[in-house]
Amino acid sequence: FSTASGETVRATLFPGDGIGPEIAESVKQVFNVAGVPIEWEEHYVGTEVDPRTESFLTWESLESVRRNKVGLKGPMATPIGKGHRSLNLTLRKELGLYANVRPCNSLPGYKTRYDDVNLVTIRENTEGEYSGLEHQVVRGVVESLKIITRQASLRVAEYAFHYAKTNGRERVSAIHKANIMRKTDGLFLKCCREVAEKYPEIAYEEVIIDNCCMTLVKNPGLFDVLVMPNLYGDIISDLCAGLIGGLGLTPSCNIGEGGICLAEAVHGSAPDIAGKNLANPTALLLSAVMMLRHLQFNNQADRIHNAILQTISEGKFRTADLGGKASTSDFTKAVCDHI
Amino acid sequence: FSTASGETVRATLFPGDGIGPEIAESVKQVFNVAGVPIEWEEHYVGTEVDPRTESFLTWESLESVRRNKVGLKGPMATPIGKGHRSLNLTLRKELGLYANVRPCNSLPGYKTRYDDVNLVTIRENTEGEYSGLEHQVVRGVVESLKIITRQASLRVAEYAFHYAKTNGRERVSAIHKANIMRKTDGLFLKCCREVAEKYPEIAYEEVIIDNCCMTLVKNPGLFDVLVMPNLYGDIISDLCAGLIGGLGLTPSCNIGEGGICLAEAVHGSAPDIAGKNLANPTALLLSAVMMLRHLQFNNQADRIHNAILQTISEGKFRTADLGGKASTSDFTKAVCDHI
Ligand SMILES: CC(C)[C@H](C(=O)O)[C@@H](O)C(=O)O
Ligand SMILES: CC(C)[C@H](C(=O)O)[C@@H](O)C(=O)O
Repeated sequence: FSTASGETVRATLFPGDGIGPEIAESVKQVFNVAGVPIEWEEHYVGTEVDPRTESFLTWESLESVRRNKVGLKGPMATPIGKGHRSLNLTLRKELGLYANVRPCNSLPGYKTRYDDVNLVTIRENTEGEYSGLEHQVVRGVVESLKIITRQASLRVAEYAFHYAKTNGRERVSAIHKANIMRKTDGLFLKCCREVAEKYPEIAYEEVIIDNCCMTLVKNPGLFDVLVMPNLYGDIISDLCAGLIGGLGLTPSCNIGEGGICLAEAVHGSAPDIAGKNLANPTALLLSAVMMLRHLQFNNQADRIHNAILQTISEGKFRTADLGGKASTSDFTKAVCDHI
Repeated sequence: FSTASGETVRATLFPGDGIGPEIAESVKQVFNVAGVPIEWEEHYVGTEVDPRTESFLTWESLESVRRNKVGLKGPMATPIGKGHRSLNLTLRKELGLYANVRPCNSLPGYKTRYDDVNLVTIRENTEGEYSGLEHQVVRGVVESLKIITRQASLRVAEYAFHYAKTNGRERVSAIHKANIMRKTDGLFLKCCREVAEKYPEIAYEEVIIDNCCMTLVKNPGLFDVLVMPNLYGDIISDLCAGLIGGLGLTPSCNIGEGGICLAEAVHGSAPDIAGKNLANPTALLLSAVMMLRHLQFNNQADRIHNAILQTISEGKFRTADLGGKASTSDFTKAVCDHI
């Protein structure tokens, strides 16, 4: 494969665990049929802790992403036990994945209670409540530290406004609880306001998280781009995924230091159905489309995206999670046929 | 008024600001018609800071609740300025209001996207992310402390299981993010598990907050009683209110030290429509019903509750927030007529 200019792009692929390899296979087939000029560097989660990553992720796999600056990741379940770090958190930390981006759009043809969702959540992905700093003060009294920095807040706010501008979006809403956490969420808002001033063409508003969640379930059509600290992003991005049908249908992509783009299906590894050709590859396929857009392979991105939407909309090849009987390969074949 | 035994109960009433006095008037009228043997001690938010409460709440008003152990509260907007505390937070702190209880039921006759909501959120109301402990570490780096104590966690868990048992509920779900906040949310879960063991007849489960929010928007019927730390309770209780139509329709009640029960409409004071006879008194009326049940005035509680549901269900007297044209007094009269 090669681009118009004859170039092939190398990208890292983490098939992941459980259903990961099956849905990754689906992406490879679809990319083949669409003629995407990508050569995959495939990396699996290791079978023992790599001391250089303090986790089951191999140092080589992280080096691969750092070198290629672009990758795709399936679900990874962190093995249980002591002496190592969560795989997902290690990736975020080691690759400086500072923004998690999730477009949430109602899928034509897949009916939920909402048909007007068209928003993007942008989550700060490195700090906040995920600092890992916790301790017991005295017996029966424990505390966790939420850390907000000017640097990380500005960085994710910049990304959100840049995203809004380059994706034809009109408004950025900063989600917060600064009426209670005046200093931390207050700093986050201050940074958002500073960045907002540089983007006069993008409207800016601030919405308190409780009110945001209430409005999302009543009238999600009111939102456009949402930017927020880590935990709120964790909560709201899953809530929004629920509005359109769940994590099996929601793409995501992580933006990291030095221009890294690691697209990721954020659903679980579903060990109960692993290896049975039953998994729904939609979230990973749509995430792969985000990766293609990042690479400016817009033509292939559009063709694959439309093929996925058509397949879902026709409803003939639905996997079990969507109430259908199709296998992973039935669905994949239908997408390929639509390309 | 008097009970069967001829007794009159004294209760504190905080009409609050904005639309507060109008909707409090509605409750007084409805209670009159239903023959509720309550004598109100009415207290307004003061016009200057009371040094004994460090807020605009008067010491006398807090003493009134402590003495009566039962009260009803309308919306209170904290005046802007320095040197005083938020009214709502002061009430929670000074009265030790450790549990905020919100039943969320789909209202027959008021259509939303959901018709099967029948759950209760129980929120720890005194600590967690609301500690108020925040500081700047170095320039551009700030932290907030989330405090979880064994005492407060056991207390709210006890309340949740007791509530489930005495209200014919079958399951308690503890909502958490202990996969990230292992120590704080971990302690909260540990306390819930301890209490769960004492209630073998009530099922117990643990649900991670992001997954909880996704499930709530997809299938709220799966939940029964939810118990959680402060901020998650803030977020999830508003989300649930949104499922059934908003804060204007959702009752709440705070349980405090020494058996205090302070029922409360949690919506805002809506200064834009204050004094115009346009406000919807439903949330305050339903909260007042919770207060009556606490007092074991079950007969009056049932009659008033049914009258409210009938009025909403008939749909002839809807206030503007529900798309109707009725005034506060039209609605109130309709409820009275149904009693
Ligand atoms: C698995 C968990 C640590 C993770 C998170 O909380 O960030 C997940 O919920 C996510 O959103 O990717
Ligand atoms: C007004 C605000 C401080 C309050 C809270 O966060 O607790 C409100 O959202 C509530 O739920 O009563």
